[in-house]
Amino acid sequence: MSEHPLDPIFHPRAVALVGAPTTQSNWGGGFLLSILDIGFDKERVYPVNPKTNELNGLRCYPSLLDTPDPVDYVISMVPAHVVPTLVDQCIAKKIKAIHFFTAGFSETGDERMAEMERTMVEKLRGAGIRAIGPNCMGLYVPDGGLAFNRGFSKEPGNVFLLSQSGANAGQIINGLQRRGVRFSKAVSFGNGADLKAHDFFDYARTDPQTEVVIAYIEGIQEPRKLIDAIKGCAAVKPTIILKGGLYPAGARAANSHTASLAGSRVIFESLCRQAGAIRAETMNDLLDLTVAVTTGTRKVAGTGVALVGGPGGFAVLSSDAIAAEGLDLPPMPVDVKEKLREFVPVAGTSVNNPIDAHLRPGEQFEDGVKAIAGAPGIDVVFSTTYGNEAMPRGGDSDSDDETPPEEREDLAKKHAQEAAEALVRLQDETGKPFVIVQRDQGWMPNASSAYPLAAYEHGIGVFSDVPRAARAVRLMLEWRRRREGLPEIF
Amino acid sequence: MSEHPLDPIFHPRAVALVGAPTTQSNWGGGFLLSILDIGFDKERVYPVNPKTNELNGLRCYPSLLDTPDPVDYVISMVPAHVVPTLVDQCIAKKIKAIHFFTAGFSETGDERMAEMERTMVEKLRGAGIRAIGPNCMGLYVPDGGLAFNRGFSKEPGNVFLLSQSGANAGQIINGLQRRGVRFSKAVSFGNGADLKAHDFFDYARTDPQTEVVIAYIEGIQEPRKLIDAIKGCAAVKPTIILKGGLYPAGARAANSHTASLAGSRVIFESLCRQAGAIRAETMNDLLDLTVAVTTGTRKVAGTGVALVGGPGGFAVLSSDAIAAEGLDLPPMPVDVKEKLREFVPVAGTSVNNPIDAHLRPGEQFEDGVKAIAGAPGIDVVFSTTYGNEAMPRGGDSDSDDETPPEEREDLAKKHAQEAAEALVRLQDETGKPFVIVQRDQGWMPNASSAYPLAAYEHGIGVFSDVPRAARAVRLMLEWRRRREGLPEIF
Repeated sequence: MSEHPLDPIFHPRAVALVGAPTTQSNWGGGFLLSILDIGFDKERVYPVNPKTNELNGLRCYPSLLDTPDPVDYVISMVPAHVVPTLVDQCIAKKIKAIHFFTAGFSETGDERMAEMERTMVEKLRGAGIRAIGPNCMGLYVPDGGLAFNRGFSKEPGNVFLLSQSGANAGQIINGLQRRGVRFSKAVSFGNGADLKAHDFFDYARTDPQTEVVIAYIEGIQEPRKLIDAIKGCAAVKPTIILKGGLYPAGARAANSHTASLAGSRVIFESLCRQAGAIRAETMNDLLDLTVAVTTGTRKVAGTGVALVGGPGGFAVLSSDAIAAEGLDLPPMPVDVKEKLREFVPVAGTSVNNPIDAHLRPGEQFEDGVKAIAGAPGIDVVFSTTYGNEAMPRGGDSDSDDETPPEEREDLAKKHAQEAAEALVRLQDETGKPFVIVQRDQGWMPNASSAYPLAAYEHGIGVFSDVPRAARAVRLMLEWRRRREGLPEIF
Repeated sequence: MSEHPLDPIFHPRAVALVGAPTTQSNWGGGFLLSILDIGFDKERVYPVNPKTNELNGLRCYPSLLDTPDPVDYVISMVPAHVVPTLVDQCIAKKIKAIHFFTAGFSETGDERMAEMERTMVEKLRGAGIRAIGPNCMGLYVPDGGLAFNRGFSKEPGNVFLLSQSGANAGQIINGLQRRGVRFSKAVSFGNGADLKAHDFFDYARTDPQTEVVIAYIEGIQEPRKLIDAIKGCAAVKPTIILKGGLYPAGARAANSHTASLAGSRVIFESLCRQAGAIRAETMNDLLDLTVAVTTGTRKVAGTGVALVGGPGGFAVLSSDAIAAEGLDLPPMPVDVKEKLREFVPVAGTSVNNPIDAHLRPGEQFEDGVKAIAGAPGIDVVFSTTYGNEAMPRGGDSDSDDETPPEEREDLAKKHAQEAAEALVRLQDETGKPFVIVQRDQGWMPNASSAYPLAAYEHGIGVFSDVPRAARAVRLMLEWRRRREGLPEIF
């Protein structure tokens, strides 16, 4: 496998943090703690700050030029006016890449600062040094020991995230990681003065670790290159793009934020359409679509939904929500209804899809769900959960239990694994994708997330409510329809 | 004040629970525990079940006829086939009202059971006894000692809820109570065989404790009476209605659930429009609109939003979300921008609305927000929060602290009260409603809910994210515009 020119950036051998603040908080200045937490070899992490000799147990150097050789990656936290000096030091130090957390350049609208941004990039590129930013959070590489927030998972995955915004990158990573998604790499690239969206799409397309590419972008820099890069990427990997600044107010905000000139909604929608990428309209869309394309939800073949879960009022509103997305709830045929009535009491239930009935775990559930999934017109089964599949004996979380907390957790994980495995078996046997829909956590605030996580790990899409699950399925269907003629990637 | 004929139903002197199960769980059979929890005088609670002599420390009677006199309210948990016998006993016992948790009547589609439902209602009404249900959860009356789920607040409030579905009633009560809303009364009335939606709208209209009426209904029974009752109610009190079964699939589910014949969306929308009520399209709408009409959010005068809160990527997507609802973000005039730049650094911020800047609590925040709220075209200020206003020194929740947990909680409440009071002062001084928008809880999972709750108690609308806050404001504006010519209720 040939190496991509950007590969070394994602896997530096040594990192210098120039201008590392003497107090480390989780926000902004927390790079040092973040990369120590995620496991970068601390022998090769060099904080630089003339005001102290030690930071978090590491030797702190007065200047970049005083750090040991080699340093191939620099994180710049110095103020903007110090950047020209730092650039000269980086060239002298022969580094490979620099990430500018430093802000205050073109995004301020100040022409002198925009000029300084152009000059620093030209100088660096002349020396063969690539820059990420300025005005961004930089890299998260689980197996490269890089992170920009504490709490990012060490476990690498298959999703590549590129985001102009650092805060949105953090929100996306946290939001998806809580749902079980793991990342190959993520990059927040801010103003994109040197490396731009198209560079990262291009890298993600060729990166063997990456199977899915997701993006938050604000501006369109070098439109032709960007379109080509998105096209190339979306042709071979599911590619999901959330675009900020689609309305004039958002565009003005994007301009202040990352100096971006945002395009119109219509142009961007047609760009995604032509490229075979999918446009997420909201942050929730981006999260839900990522879950959908990394699970069996991407394979749903048609609009027929079976909804298994009550009680009645929930089933009524859920049916409306499914219909509002243009999906169907085909009624169950007589033989399936009769089958279900063998173990579902008549009072307070319905077996006609929605199946407003509590199918008890075990044989009942398996037989019932098999019959439902096999019914004519059913393409996907929505199975609702309070999360209590992870509880011993399927009981609710309020029950007193003398088991010590750590054993309870292990037990919950074991039960969750078993329940997820049972669902996957059913999915395989029936050949219909299953989707798990979580119920309002307010009902069971202590319910474990073990079951949804185990289900996701087994390739089952998990969504927070019926409207979002229905929307994810609808968007998947539309996307697949639009991609006809393009190479098969699902 | 004259008494409404339904008053005694909401304030019974003694309650018999007939068919109370010998094991009490929180779901379904938990009525006994729920009414004991909420404080009904336990000397006047009579469980009835021939299989035991005692239930939860209370004497259990073999039959309703064996209970002490008087009993004016019965909760029926017996199976449907036992109902005719129970009805005779109720008449002999001279009760005033009965709530049938018992299901299995007209909603099953079985004509014999529908006939049994009609017969039992006729017999009861002949004896002057009113019925709630069947197939429902009945009453929640905080100051009457009635409840149907554990954990419902004892504190009475000003919102009346009527809901055909018991599960949805529970979700609405829990969902709103977590946000600080309190209820005058709530009723889940299921099939509405005797008392129907129009009876409860009529009661809510006249109930002096009730200032806001919210409803979840599935079917339209006696359309003329329902329309008149909604009209009467909406003319004098804000009235919000969520209708289930608006799509064919939902309507089929509603028919199985509460024997309801659901109408079309168009008819229902026009009914609400004519009546001056507001139609909630989703459960989230119902919750958000309730918060809006019980706070200053109902007074927002126009579409001009000032958004205070970063960071940048959040501000960009929020601006798009605000614009998507048809609201505006008027740019700040030069003098306000100059004022803000006195304490907002240039790098990584924007002061042009959205105001992507961290205004530190205290004078900075107050001066900044006053200037923003006073700018031309601003009708409402969206102020974002991570919930850390309740933290000592405005610090984040990860910080170690030696303060014992109970003192920390008291301190959090105190800080939250102070922050809420400061916001109300600013609102009063500027004459512009403020709205609080909560940030992703994943960032600060331990952040206290004390600040949002304190703010709600001070009459400030609190919403979970910008899209929902913007939607609530837009729906309020539309509603007020439509109500022109009707009596002023806001």
